[in-house]
Parts: sequence; C-alpha cells; structure tokens
Amino acid sequence: MTEIIDDLTRERYDAAGFGRPVGLGKRPGLLIIDVQYRTTGTEPRPFDEAIQEFTTSCGDVAWDAVGNIERLLKLFRGKGWPVLYPYVAPKKAFDAGALGAKVPGIMDIPDKGYEFHPAIAPLEGEILLPKRHPSAFFGTPLLSYLVQAGVDSLVVTGCSTSGCVRGSAVDAFSYNYKVAVPNDAVYDRSPLVHEVNLFDMGQKYADVLTTSELVDALEGVPAP
Amino acid sequence: MTEIIDDLTRERYDAAGFGRPVGLGKRPGLLIIDVQYRTTGTEPRPFDEAIQEFTTSCGDVAWDAVGNIERLLKLFRGKGWPVLYPYVAPKKAFDAGALGAKVPGIMDIPDKGYEFHPAIAPLEGEILLPKRHPSAFFGTPLLSYLVQAGVDSLVVTGCSTSGCVRGSAVDAFSYNYKVAVPNDAVYDRSPLVHEVNLFDMGQKYADVLTTSELVDALEGVPAP
Amino acid sequence: MTEIIDDLTRERYDAAGFGRPVGLGKRPGLLIIDVQYRTTGTEPRPFDEAIQEFTTSCGDVAWDAVGNIERLLKLFRGKGWPVLYPYVAPKKAFDAGALGAKVPGIMDIPDKGYEFHPAIAPLEGEILLPKRHPSAFFGTPLLSYLVQAGVDSLVVTGCSTSGCVRGSAVDAFSYNYKVAVPNDAVYDRSPLVHEVNLFDMGQKYADVLTTSELVDALEGVPAP
Amino acid sequence: MTEIIDDLTRERYDAAGFGRPVGLGKRPGLLIIDVQYRTTGTEPRPFDEAIQEFTTSCGDVAWDAVGNIERLLKLFRGKGWPVLYPYVAPKKAFDAGALGAKVPGIMDIPDKGYEFHPAIAPLEGEILLPKRHPSAFFGTPLLSYLVQAGVDSLVVTGCSTSGCVRGSAVDAFSYNYKVAVPNDAVYDRSPLVHEVNLFDMGQKYADVLTTSELVDALEGVPAP
Repeated sequence: MTEIIDDLTRERYDAAGFGRPVGLGKRPGLLIIDVQYRTTGTEPRPFDEAIQEFTTSCGDVAWDAVGNIERLLKLFRGKGWPVLYPYVAPKKAFDAGALGAKVPGIMDIPDKGYEFHPAIAPLEGEILLPKRHPSAFFGTPLLSYLVQAGVDSLVVTGCSTSGCVRGSAVDAFSYNYKVAVPNDAVYDRSPLVHEVNLFDMGQKYADVLTTSELVDALEGVPAP
Repeated sequence: MTEIIDDLTRERYDAAGFGRPVGLGKRPGLLIIDVQYRTTGTEPRPFDEAIQEFTTSCGDVAWDAVGNIERLLKLFRGKGWPVLYPYVAPKKAFDAGALGAKVPGIMDIPDKGYEFHPAIAPLEGEILLPKRHPSAFFGTPLLSYLVQAGVDSLVVTGCSTSGCVRGSAVDAFSYNYKVAVPNDAVYDRSPLVHEVNLFDMGQKYADVLTTSELVDALEGVPAP
Repeated sequence: MTEIIDDLTRERYDAAGFGRPVGLGKRPGLLIIDVQYRTTGTEPRPFDEAIQEFTTSCGDVAWDAVGNIERLLKLFRGKGWPVLYPYVAPKKAFDAGALGAKVPGIMDIPDKGYEFHPAIAPLEGEILLPKRHPSAFFGTPLLSYLVQAGVDSLVVTGCSTSGCVRGSAVDAFSYNYKVAVPNDAVYDRSPLVHEVNLFDMGQKYADVLTTSELVDALEGVPAP
Repeated sequence: MTEIIDDLTRERYDAAGFGRPVGLGKRPGLLIIDVQYRTTGTEPRPFDEAIQEFTTSCGDVAWDAVGNIERLLKLFRGKGWPVLYPYVAPKKAFDAGALGAKVPGIMDIPDKGYEFHPAIAPLEGEILLPKRHPSAFFGTPLLSYLVQAGVDSLVVTGCSTSGCVRGSAVDAFSYNYKVAVPNDAVYDRSPLVHEVNLFDMGQKYADVLTTSELVDALEGVPAP
C-alpha cells in the first residue's frame, strides 16, 4: 500500500540500507497466533459490529486472513513441518497486571471468544502454547519446542499485526530464526497500523510477502 | 500528530477500549537506549547528510531528543533513582546473525559511532548494558539489575522509536512494569514510523506524553 | 547433617569465603513447587511402596515437609503476602523432549497425580503457574507476577530439592531476589542428594534454615 | 565414585526410572565455561595454596580437567563445530547483587584472574559470552548463537561442576538440547559436591561420561 508508506520513509530506509531479504530455512515452523473467536468473531462482520461481540475482534479482515492461513496450514501439514499455536489463555483475576491497566476490557472476554477459529483449529499432536503477553516467546516454552523440532525458520501468521505478530517476529529475529510474515495472513484493527507494522517488520526483522509468494517459495523446500 | 494517525484508527482503538493511562510507580528507573554517535551523528545534521557519517544515524531529530533526555537524566540523578544504559556493543563477526542478513551495513559502523553522546554519557556507578538485539531485555541481565534496584516502573528514552525503544517497552510491559515513553525524548528515521509506533505504544503498552508533562509528574514522586 | 557434608568440603567453602547470610526482604513471596500427589503420594508411605503409586513420588519425607509448608502458607496468607504455585502440568505427547528421553516414566503419571496435595491447595486468587521444566521461571510468566506483586524476596518450598527447588532457587538468585530455602519444607528421593543440594544452595544461592527459624524471622517483617 | 554415591541413592533412582541415556545429536556445540585463571590459578597448585592467589580457584584438579577440555576443543575445531566461551566478566560495583551478598570475595578478584587459561584460549571467530550469573544462558545471547549455528546438542565443560556447569546443563536440557557432560573435563572445589552434582546431572539432565568415551562417540558424528 504505497498510499500509507510515504516516499520519504521509503527513501530513508533504502538510503540507510535496511530491508534486505532473509530467505527461507530448511526446516520451517508455522506459528498461528491468537486465531480465536475473540479476534475473528464467530462470523465475518464489519469492525463496528464485530466489536459488539468481542471488543478484541478485528472484524471481517480477520476472515480474509484466515483463508490464507488455511493455505499455509495445509502446506505445513502436508510437508510434515511443525505447526504451533500460541493463543490467549482465558484470563484469571491475577493476570490483570499491566495489560489489565492498559486495556481493561480485555479481561472480560466471554469464554466463547477463547475457542480456536474452526478453519485453523489444531489437530492432535500440534503444539498448544497458552500465553499471557504479546510475544509468543514471552513466558512460554516456545523456544524449547522449536529446539526439539529442529526448526531454523518461522512463518508468523495471525493477530494482531501490531501486537502479538510483531512481538513474536521481533523475538524470533532476536533468536536468529529466519522469519517470514505473509502480509495477507496477519490482521489488525486499523489499516494504517497494520501497514506500518508490516513495513517495520519488512525493513528490520522479517521477509514480508504475500501468502501466494510464500507458498510458492515453501513448496520448493524439501520435506524432511 | 493528527495528520499521521487517521480518524478511523483513533475511533477504532477508542471503541475497542484501548489506551487507558497507566500512571507512575513509586520507584522509577530511566532507560537511555542507544544514544551513541551511531544514532545521533557527531554533530546535528539533516538526515541525508547524517547517514553519510553513520548509516544508522537519525539526523538532527536525534539532537532535539537528546536535549529532552538530558532533562530527565538530571531529574533522575537528582532524585537518586536508577539510570541504566542499554547500548549497542561493537559488532564482532560472529554477531552477524539475522541482523546482519537484514541490515548488512549495521555490521560496519566505525568505532567512533559506539561512543555515548556526551550530553547523556554515563557516570561512574550507572549501569551499562551492552546488547545485541532490539529489546534492552533480550540477552542481557537488565531484569536482574531492575530487581536489585527495586524498580516498579520505567521511563524509556532514546532510539529508535520503532526498534529498540518499542522492543524494550513491549518487554517492560510484559514484565508488568509501568512504562512511560516521552514522545520527544525518543527518535527515529521517519516521521510516519515514529508517530505510528508512539501510537501503538500509547494504545497498548505505555503512557506516551511529552518530556515536560513527564518531568512534572515525576517531580511529584518522593525521592527514596 | 554433618555426616553427609564432610569436613574437607566445609573447610574449603569456608576458606573460599562462600555462604554468607543474605537476610530477608521487605516483601517476600512464597513458592510452593510441585506439591502434588505425584510427588507426595495420596498417603504417606515408605519410598519403595510410594513409587508403586507414582514413580515420581518421594515417599513419607514429603508428608513431613508438607506440614512445614502449611505453617509457612498460613503465615503468608495471614500477612497478605503473595503465594505462587508453580506445578507440573499434565504431559501431552509433544512435551516429551529432553525430559521424556531422560526419565521416560515421567510422561505416564496418572491424572490423580497432578492434583495438589489438599493441605496446601491454592485458594481463589493465588497464582497458578503450570510449568514443563525444572525451574519455576523457565518458560513461565513467573517474573511478571513477581514484578506485579512487588516482591523482593522468595521463600522456596516443595519438591524436589535437587530438581525444581534448586533450579528455581538458582534462577531467583540470578534475578537478584533474596532467597530463603527452609530445609525441612523441601524434599527429595535420596538423603544424600537432598543434603548436598541444600549445602550447595546455602553456600551459593540462598539462606538455608529450618521452617521454625524462618517463621520467626518472617514474623518480624511488617505486613503491607 | 561408588564411595560417594551410596547404594540407597542409586537404588532409588534406578527404581524410579531415571538416568536413561540421551545420546548425541548431529550438530554439537562445545561450551567451555569459566576456564580462566580465577578458577585454575596461574599454575597448578593444591587447593589450599591456590585460593591464596584467587579465592575462586579450584586448585590442581582444574589443570587435570583443562587437559581433557583441550582434547575436546581440538576435536571440535577439527570438525568445524561451534565453540563457545561463556566466561565471567570483570565485576563492576553495580554487579554486586545477590552474588556479592552471598560470596563477597568474588567481587575483588584481581584482573589477571579474568584471563583465559592459555591451553584453551579462544581463537578469532569463536564466540565470547561475558556473563554475570551461573548459567551461561542467563542474561546472555547464548540461545541466539546456538540457533544461528544450528546446534542440536551441547558438550558442557569447565567450572564449577556444581555452579555454572550445572546451571548451564539444566538450562540446556530445559531448552531441549541433548547435553553431554564429560566428568573429567569439569571441576569443582570439593570432591563430594563434584560427584553428587555429576550424579544429579546424569540422572536428570545429561549423559555423564569420560572425555575418552565422549571423544570416541563424537568422532563418529559426521563433520558438516
């Protein structure tokens, strides 16, 4: 979306030498982050209606992304590559902390909101990671599962682009995993915020590309 | 800057109930992140000139921010509150990793670039934290120093707004510290990226306010 | 137990200057680690019988320790200080990892084994931390809860002395918390291993003392 | 040493099903921990003399271990496998923390003590990791280097068996790396403490074997 990222910004990052492609690894893992009814709603609805059901919902953009995540999920399952589901665990009172101070409504999401969206729901043996903070690595044993699985790269999908996706991508990058973010398989509540966060990730932490481009590239990686 | 954050974005975050104020703690710590010549340049210069000296330089906006960091630093030193300096350590070949792949030029900054800007240089006894990744918490003993110092809140300043400042603010929030980000004491290479990252932090992770507002509020916190 | 720690060992640690007392903080937290039927058995039984019920059981020494943990728990609840329960979560197949390789039987503990011992079972509002690795800090959000609670010191109780208690004490020490380990409120499957691990912790990481001594000292700390 | 680990202890761990062998990975890394003059002394001397030079010295047992570490180091360099040096960084006043409280003398080791033992000193390109806490993973970017190097297993050598070696082995195990500890390439200040910590590691976290056994096994792993 050239309309959102202005020329000055692009020119400056180019001049400073950011944004080189990272490429894929030999053993990718798929993170599907927070694709639960609390972020998609139980049906595709425009944003303003969607937040009536769950205040954390992103509305119909979520459903477009879910279709793309499904494509990636099918590919990963077919290749026998690891699929991991970091997700928001139902909140207990003692979880309030800084999050409850900043976004109080997030503490009161109805139980239904914590169910996985059925299109991408985990199968037996896929790895579940309840989490309480933005990054899928923070306060979870994600690293241990990645080491066990011998993963060298991560495809990060889900929600929200500016929150848990970005937090996880920054940590994955910091741990020296190769990171790919499919820009149409992540979603957020504002187009501006979504696009600028994709730009940041693409310049500094990850390869950002479409699901179709990523699927093509991943199909070329040999299965184990 | 209403020009950058559009109405749709503001309305949606308001409707979803984000962005409540967090407030200050009783025992704040000050993080001064990466305020080294490599991000400020050795003199205030426009961006396009500044990157000729160090490709990681942000140009003259850095010098405006440094003035504000000085004000905060003087206040913290006067109160006897902890001051910590997470900074970029000179790169060795084995540090390349994901960062060297994404931003190759960052591996070849001249030594002079790693010096602290003299206006905010650390005094004997202030805590130095060499780091290799965006967040000041990642791969460093920062948490141990904060526990030792009994800190309950953090003021995050320095550079870049979208990189190390944001990464550190997200982690500080995740650890349940109260976080304040003075919007004129952090800096970045693009106004768009700077503003959207401040918006994200203000909605989800931190109180974002001016240095003057923050200084006023902090002056009301009793010294130990 | 002077019989287990030999004179040579004591003399060398004394000569090298280890083992100074750390003292208590102003705001202690209580960790009750893995005090579940899987380590105590559903009834007090000698070790050889106890492992017939759960291979991870420590036998009747566990029940002696549980009595002492109860005393500490009552004190902490009375003072209004935080109580946290790191516990072993039921194992899923994907949890096997290095642990399943080293101690295969640990993957097949019956469900009953994961229940908390009723004498110390958590009350509503006390903090539950499912964990998959020895240290209560590893792959859990324990740190975030401690920061939120403003804790500056930890009393570490439970099981096993050489495993999760020690791992948690080493990490708590590394984060600069003051650590106390009541030697009769932790338990293990071998007296030798129990005593040497207490010695190691007392020399390097924690104050090791009896529950009675610790209760006396803690009673002198003002409630919040 | 059957004299130190008593029959009761062995029988109980056997009965409970601990201590199964883990085996080697395909891509091992070598950790050489704290093999600096501060733990070996500048010359091989008996313990009581050695601590006159540096209170943290382990005496002549260190020099025996260094010879075995050299054998492993030569093998790793020959195979082109990663070698990493977690080491104790010279202490600044702000590092005192819990360690300075517990072992005050550790804050005042002369500079000479921080030099690497020349027999195992790092070559250009080998990875240096200054650390401030027992585990080589704690507050350091070790994980990021291991991910970058594609390591799936670790050989842990150096000092002390009960301190930094054990702390690092527990964390490596928790991250699901396969861990091997050569029992004659690690050292400590007391035979009792050394042996019991080797026993603990062998039962729960690592394969413990002699350097000769480990060298034989590693020679069978294909170089990259």
